[in-house]
Amino acid sequence: MLEELKREAYEANVALPRHGLINLTFGNASAVDRAKGIFAIKPSGVDYAALTADDMVLVDFDGKRVEGKLNPSSDTPTHRRLLLAWPQLGGVVHTHSSHATAFAQAGRAIPIFGTTHADYFAGDIPVTRKMTLQEIAAAYEWETGNVIVERFAAGKLDPLDFPAVLVNRHAPFTWAATVAKAVEVAVAVECIAQMALMSLQLEPTLAPIEDELLQKHFKRKHGAGAYYGQTLAG
Amino acid sequence: MLEELKREAYEANVALPRHGLINLTFGNASAVDRAKGIFAIKPSGVDYAALTADDMVLVDFDGKRVEGKLNPSSDTPTHRRLLLAWPQLGGVVHTHSSHATAFAQAGRAIPIFGTTHADYFAGDIPVTRKMTLQEIAAAYEWETGNVIVERFAAGKLDPLDFPAVLVNRHAPFTWAATVAKAVEVAVAVECIAQMALMSLQLEPTLAPIEDELLQKHFKRKHGAGAYYGQTLAG
Amino acid sequence: MLEELKREAYEANVALPRHGLINLTFGNASAVDRAKGIFAIKPSGVDYAALTADDMVLVDFDGKRVEGKLNPSSDTPTHRRLLLAWPQLGGVVHTHSSHATAFAQAGRAIPIFGTTHADYFAGDIPVTRKMTLQEIAAAYEWETGNVIVERFAAGKLDPLDFPAVLVNRHAPFTWAATVAKAVEVAVAVECIAQMALMSLQLEPTLAPIEDELLQKHFKRKHGAGAYYGQTLAG
Amino acid sequence: MLEELKREAYEANVALPRHGLINLTFGNASAVDRAKGIFAIKPSGVDYAALTADDMVLVDFDGKRVEGKLNPSSDTPTHRRLLLAWPQLGGVVHTHSSHATAFAQAGRAIPIFGTTHADYFAGDIPVTRKMTLQEIAAAYEWETGNVIVERFAAGKLDPLDFPAVLVNRHAPFTWAATVAKAVEVAVAVECIAQMALMSLQLEPTLAPIEDELLQKHFKRKHGAGAYYGQTLAG
Repeated sequence: MLEELKREAYEANVALPRHGLINLTFGNASAVDRAKGIFAIKPSGVDYAALTADDMVLVDFDGKRVEGKLNPSSDTPTHRRLLLAWPQLGGVVHTHSSHATAFAQAGRAIPIFGTTHADYFAGDIPVTRKMTLQEIAAAYEWETGNVIVERFAAGKLDPLDFPAVLVNRHAPFTWAATVAKAVEVAVAVECIAQMALMSLQLEPTLAPIEDELLQKHFKRKHGAGAYYGQTLAG
Repeated sequence: MLEELKREAYEANVALPRHGLINLTFGNASAVDRAKGIFAIKPSGVDYAALTADDMVLVDFDGKRVEGKLNPSSDTPTHRRLLLAWPQLGGVVHTHSSHATAFAQAGRAIPIFGTTHADYFAGDIPVTRKMTLQEIAAAYEWETGNVIVERFAAGKLDPLDFPAVLVNRHAPFTWAATVAKAVEVAVAVECIAQMALMSLQLEPTLAPIEDELLQKHFKRKHGAGAYYGQTLAG
Repeated sequence: MLEELKREAYEANVALPRHGLINLTFGNASAVDRAKGIFAIKPSGVDYAALTADDMVLVDFDGKRVEGKLNPSSDTPTHRRLLLAWPQLGGVVHTHSSHATAFAQAGRAIPIFGTTHADYFAGDIPVTRKMTLQEIAAAYEWETGNVIVERFAAGKLDPLDFPAVLVNRHAPFTWAATVAKAVEVAVAVECIAQMALMSLQLEPTLAPIEDELLQKHFKRKHGAGAYYGQTLAG
Repeated sequence: MLEELKREAYEANVALPRHGLINLTFGNASAVDRAKGIFAIKPSGVDYAALTADDMVLVDFDGKRVEGKLNPSSDTPTHRRLLLAWPQLGGVVHTHSSHATAFAQAGRAIPIFGTTHADYFAGDIPVTRKMTLQEIAAAYEWETGNVIVERFAAGKLDPLDFPAVLVNRHAPFTWAATVAKAVEVAVAVECIAQMALMSLQLEPTLAPIEDELLQKHFKRKHGAGAYYGQTLAG
């Protein structure tokens, strides 16, 4: 069942190492069918080279495996938490891409320094607070999703205006209306993180991009007035 | 019409990701036919892997699309502004290559530290001033071209002696007598930016290259006395 | 004899340059057959591109070559020392991978800053003390193994909880229950070193990961309670 | 004539971009036939992808082109100066590899921090003094060779114990008994430069490797007592 959904999740997963975002088995992608209340996700710890579309595991919104012989990704509860919180999401991607993870390890948001960043995000890429002993000890991966959702609620951030987060001490998660777009955001996050790190080498106290330029670039690509690309523009 | 021009623009565009200068769809190249007053440019937001020579959009000097079903690059007015300002240009290239963009985000010119840089540029790679609220709100991409032209006029810089610029908070543009050469300059800019960043790590207050060595290398490759390569030398 | 063992050692050796861990001939891998008391190791100074499984040299635990026309790796006594000290090892890998070696040259352990590191190590990746004049002058490669073993004894470190070391001024060694897993650890070490270096650029005094998060990630993948992957989890 | 020599020079030249040491046309290699007093060198400014063995230019020790339709590399007088000064050389390689060039631009020797460096060099990779106005204005490329030779004479450095130099503000040159080995040294120099830059990030005042360890590693690979590899060891 849901061959198309499994194919979509599979394509997203194998795109991650091809874009240089994944070392070893550090990462996973999921795609959701909202009507059926089911998402497809990578099996845990399986080598990307050996992966097939058939290996994708189907999981429902209660976290029950509804199809697939393999264990789903250990990060499945984090994906589920985000998909439940934000109905506008069609897919979630998790990587340990090097430059973005360096910011996450340092507990630092990625500051918005230029138009490349503003093409994808309406501001800094946020970082979560650290997790408590209780959160780590209990349902760790579910609680990881909770601290993400808490961060967005506290900052009144729209998840499609800020389609990524850094989990403190951990690594980035990205999302979008489709999982293919969430992969694109994951590529952008890594590239943005690398450039931010180098701009900080040049100017350790560099101020963020001016707000009017941020808004201009973000709105070139998003919302009613968008005029970038072929489908958005009139 | 203008099959040759579209082919030339196409070859330049697909060379950009091959040289590692482009992530996602961040970049574009244009080639101009001066006699006909028309330039060919990449369509907006189209994936490089799917691009064909036929997809190139033909635009005239008034900014009117004269051939092509797709929307031209959203940066088309910037290309047009530069091609109008500087009749010696045969093509323009725009990338968000990582190291050069790190300098642009920091609002810093790329200082000329060595002979690699001097082989392509008669001095630092300049950076524009920041754009005003009015410039951003109005014809943003055209005004981006204007601040580039203003920077060169203010500095009395010949665009073929300084075939690139960093747009403040944005990224590099390069140009040359042909678009193929503008691609070569874009490769050089990224490589020069990376080396400058590392030299600055070693010596944060490093002085620029001595003027006599700068002139020697620049003139080995440019102008009447050039003796580098096969066609320039006697 | 021992065709399977030579094949295993060969596959591990050629995986090293494929993972970008080896420049030139800087590195080697060995696989051990505990029952026979013999290990297979790369021949010294042979180009990876020219290597065949048949070139692997078989050496016994006294250091005697028991099969193979070529000289074994000059680092053979270091491998032998580790295999003798720790019976739980199935293979040893040595690389000069760039980021890890940068830490080794500086005589610095790789601090544990995030969950990527905690997925493989129960703490910092340790560094040995410097070797004495006597150790360098005498059986240098054997003594290299000795300072590694000394470091683990002094720190009461279990080699499977800390499956790598940085030899001071030199480079990393990794190991595991199989040589294929030791290659995987070598990939992880390089990736962890790169991220640590960047996190230190952002926060020069960054504290290590909180212990509860460290333990959570390490135990997700190791020991009786592990639930990552397909074979570890119930 | 000298088909074998041209083939050898050609193979060395095309190996440079394959090893990631060359951007655009920044670099060249030469191979010498001492008996005939002739060396083969890359033609100037020719794209590596288009290069053939037949394109190699034959030049004698007086600098006269004795075969080949194309202009030899503009750096030919530097190669010639080194080949004349040091009869033990079989080939010379010049690159603008990024990390090594970053040191050259900063006028800094590459400090010897670890055993990777000591496997190839008996100490720091030296840097030349800056060239004078007169040297730059006159026979610039020949004088480039002169400042290299002067640096080695002043430091009493044996060119086979120190098979590379950084030309101040410019880039590295390497050499060896064969041009193939000079390519290998060029790979090592770039890798060593990258690791030194990162070790300096970790420890800005890092001391050089202890002399006994330096000597041990250098002599494992060089001279009468060498025991690394297949041909050197007994």
